[in-house]
Amino acid sequence: MGKDTKINPACNVVIFLLVPSIIVNIFFILRDHDEINLWDGRWQLSWSRRAAVEAEYVAAISCSGHGKAYLDGSPSLLDGNKSPPCECNTCFGGPDCSQILPGCVVDVDSGNPYFLEPFWTENAESSAVLLSGWHRMGYASSTMVTEELEKHIRELHEIVGNAVTKERFIVFGVGSIQLLSAAIHALSPQNSSSPARVVVSVPYYGTYKSQTDYFESMKFKFGGEASLWKNNSDANNTNLIELVTSPNNPDGQLKKSVLHGPNVKAIYDRVYYWPHFTAIDSAPANEEVMLFSLSKLTGHAGSRFGWAVVKDEEVYQRMLTHVSLNTIGISREAQLRALQLVKVALQGNGKDIFEFGYKTLSNRWEKLNETLSVSSRFSLQKLGAQYCSFFQAVRGPSPGYAWLKCEREEDKDCYAVLEEANIKGRRGSVFGAEERYVRLSLVRSQDDFDLMIHQLNKLVSQEYNPKLILEPGTFVSGS
Amino acid sequence: MGKDTKINPACNVVIFLLVPSIIVNIFFILRDHDEINLWDGRWQLSWSRRAAVEAEYVAAISCSGHGKAYLDGSPSLLDGNKSPPCECNTCFGGPDCSQILPGCVVDVDSGNPYFLEPFWTENAESSAVLLSGWHRMGYASSTMVTEELEKHIRELHEIVGNAVTKERFIVFGVGSIQLLSAAIHALSPQNSSSPARVVVSVPYYGTYKSQTDYFESMKFKFGGEASLWKNNSDANNTNLIELVTSPNNPDGQLKKSVLHGPNVKAIYDRVYYWPHFTAIDSAPANEEVMLFSLSKLTGHAGSRFGWAVVKDEEVYQRMLTHVSLNTIGISREAQLRALQLVKVALQGNGKDIFEFGYKTLSNRWEKLNETLSVSSRFSLQKLGAQYCSFFQAVRGPSPGYAWLKCEREEDKDCYAVLEEANIKGRRGSVFGAEERYVRLSLVRSQDDFDLMIHQLNKLVSQEYNPKLILEPGTFVSGS
Repeated sequence: MGKDTKINPACNVVIFLLVPSIIVNIFFILRDHDEINLWDGRWQLSWSRRAAVEAEYVAAISCSGHGKAYLDGSPSLLDGNKSPPCECNTCFGGPDCSQILPGCVVDVDSGNPYFLEPFWTENAESSAVLLSGWHRMGYASSTMVTEELEKHIRELHEIVGNAVTKERFIVFGVGSIQLLSAAIHALSPQNSSSPARVVVSVPYYGTYKSQTDYFESMKFKFGGEASLWKNNSDANNTNLIELVTSPNNPDGQLKKSVLHGPNVKAIYDRVYYWPHFTAIDSAPANEEVMLFSLSKLTGHAGSRFGWAVVKDEEVYQRMLTHVSLNTIGISREAQLRALQLVKVALQGNGKDIFEFGYKTLSNRWEKLNETLSVSSRFSLQKLGAQYCSFFQAVRGPSPGYAWLKCEREEDKDCYAVLEEANIKGRRGSVFGAEERYVRLSLVRSQDDFDLMIHQLNKLVSQEYNPKLILEPGTFVSGS
Repeated sequence: MGKDTKINPACNVVIFLLVPSIIVNIFFILRDHDEINLWDGRWQLSWSRRAAVEAEYVAAISCSGHGKAYLDGSPSLLDGNKSPPCECNTCFGGPDCSQILPGCVVDVDSGNPYFLEPFWTENAESSAVLLSGWHRMGYASSTMVTEELEKHIRELHEIVGNAVTKERFIVFGVGSIQLLSAAIHALSPQNSSSPARVVVSVPYYGTYKSQTDYFESMKFKFGGEASLWKNNSDANNTNLIELVTSPNNPDGQLKKSVLHGPNVKAIYDRVYYWPHFTAIDSAPANEEVMLFSLSKLTGHAGSRFGWAVVKDEEVYQRMLTHVSLNTIGISREAQLRALQLVKVALQGNGKDIFEFGYKTLSNRWEKLNETLSVSSRFSLQKLGAQYCSFFQAVRGPSPGYAWLKCEREEDKDCYAVLEEANIKGRRGSVFGAEERYVRLSLVRSQDDFDLMIHQLNKLVSQEYNPKLILEPGTFVSGS
């Protein structure tokens, strides 16, 4: 017996093999178990795997933090490259966007809301969406609306407290811009010989005028400055539609309508009324027609998705007809993605995204103010601290745009002054204002903002040292 | 030594354990290896996995082949259900769509192109797309176009031979319907006191009139039947824009413009000019402005994606301006998905999708003709066999719609005749034609088609047995 229980050398080898084999098995089993728990249910991926791997592959292409590669990027055939290339931020170049381009013009013109991009890369898992080939192929139902998305949008307004949506209708549109047009059509008198006048207050978002002028209708035309209609004798016989952006683009002011009366209707463009950009009042906005957009909420301008909150059923029905005849509804892909993004925005009762957005924009505003504080040549709009019912705290300003004024008598063309310093803003005249003003976009990428600050610093230094030459191409990238 | 080499019982147990352990090791390793090879590269999924699993989970919900569950479906909170529910085809119900609804109206009204849905479920892997949270957040570039998508669209036209795209401009739009409006605006005289007239030939797609009427512009108005302008003395002093749908909706005829002259422009709606619906001519279409859509190419109506092929640069520029002012471009999600779908359509040089589409629609057309062949009460449009340069063969017709005529003197309201048999078509008057005509959509789901045939069979039987009562609710589902 004693001899039998003695373990012989061959047996030692077997044991030597068994132990690691069991360890390897335990590793596989634990890893599988872990993988299975990544999302509730035991799922071995099949048809979706290719798309998922492709997306991760493209996401892993390094662009030095100054650009991104996209799934639908055009690989350069000249380079024999099959992967999509890095698409670099303005002023950056090279295959991996690591080079700063000399003599480059800083772009702070459009309101491309890339300031939220880092939030989405941080929330990669929760924000991804997989579209199957058969996802909602048909035209949408009569209302063109994904019910689930509408429900989540109402929930978000409830949590933020920025708009009344109970007992209100919601219409979806291809961005808030389509809904603006839909609302103007809907509020114009249906049977009148004289067109309604679409009026605004300077400074106003320029597309209001260009869109109204372009779609020259029998029902409405652009009527200019709202306040001029106040004491106008024609005002009582004219149907007026006042467009109010609040907070305002370009200057961030919380505007209210100027005109009132039985023949006046107002459309409130509320796309900036989120805690990123402004304090939220304790009383939620409750206007007849309010416009919102994914672009300014989550930063997804490219999705072209907006919604209107509407009190009156007839106006709502007309707006639906408009969207239906104009584009037969809204992309189902955009709606599916919007749903996922709104779900993420709802996480932590909205605190995650709005704190990120607010922190980014208020830092930028402070930095810009600091840069211009020593300047007597340039000034910014005045915005004060306010109590925000969403954050339940007094908070400093965090506007999406700077409304810069050139104070020197001779700097009548402020755009040209900035252009000389290689900064491309947007002319005051686009907003119906004097050319002494320029809008600088603060919602773009960190690169755009940092480069703008760098150039502004040079401009301000020039005030003290007029011999300083503004050399293009001496950018230093911000972190 | 002999004793030492004898394997003792404990050692037997160890060997007994080692062999299966190694087999399990090999299984894990091979499985991993297999998984790694599923898509080129060794990819362990991370952030995209949740979205992929979620999509597969929803796709696996069984709806008995008579419906589908969608990622953005609204779970019924009343049932305490957290999964999205089955959304059943018309006339089917129950939690898994297995019940036929009694007394139900068969819907063959709209052109919802579900006939291609089975193609996409068969091509699940190649057609899936994963959208990251940061995919193309910004407004698009100046032309609002994904270059890679444009390139693939040109390639598809080249392969199919249905349109000249070399040295032509391409504009993207929110469905071809937005581009129709853009083209009308672009072709209208820019500085004329009298609006252009938008003219058509009966029967025409009804939205042409409703859209033109709704967007009552200073630049254009609806001008009715094109042929009436032929000998009209005003015709030479009026700018005319003729809308030509070819193949035509509703009757599938390859139409040509009726009017010619220096003051006449034509917009060709070519959305049905694909081998699914008609033979392709050996000379590719080469009109000034041609409209196409994803809806009729791949069946994705819900994506709202179309494109125009345009000869003249000025017209192209104006159309871009239109899309820009109307909706600031097209959803980036829709563009990404369109790219993936067009890539799949290009597989096998287009043979896969077009053979599938043609087979389905030509079968439906044959079946419908067979059903009505014994009827003297109903007739269909005449369509003959034609040589198709794409299939390089003579092929029978496969139209998207049946243009049904009620032949009996008393059946002046053909829509009502069908309605009584629980078939909902689209009234002839919607197409500017007599009420003696009704359009029946043949591009919808197999269920809709089968139920329609079932009801038509009953209607035709009634001709021989007038006492037969058309009982609603006696449907038998087709396979």
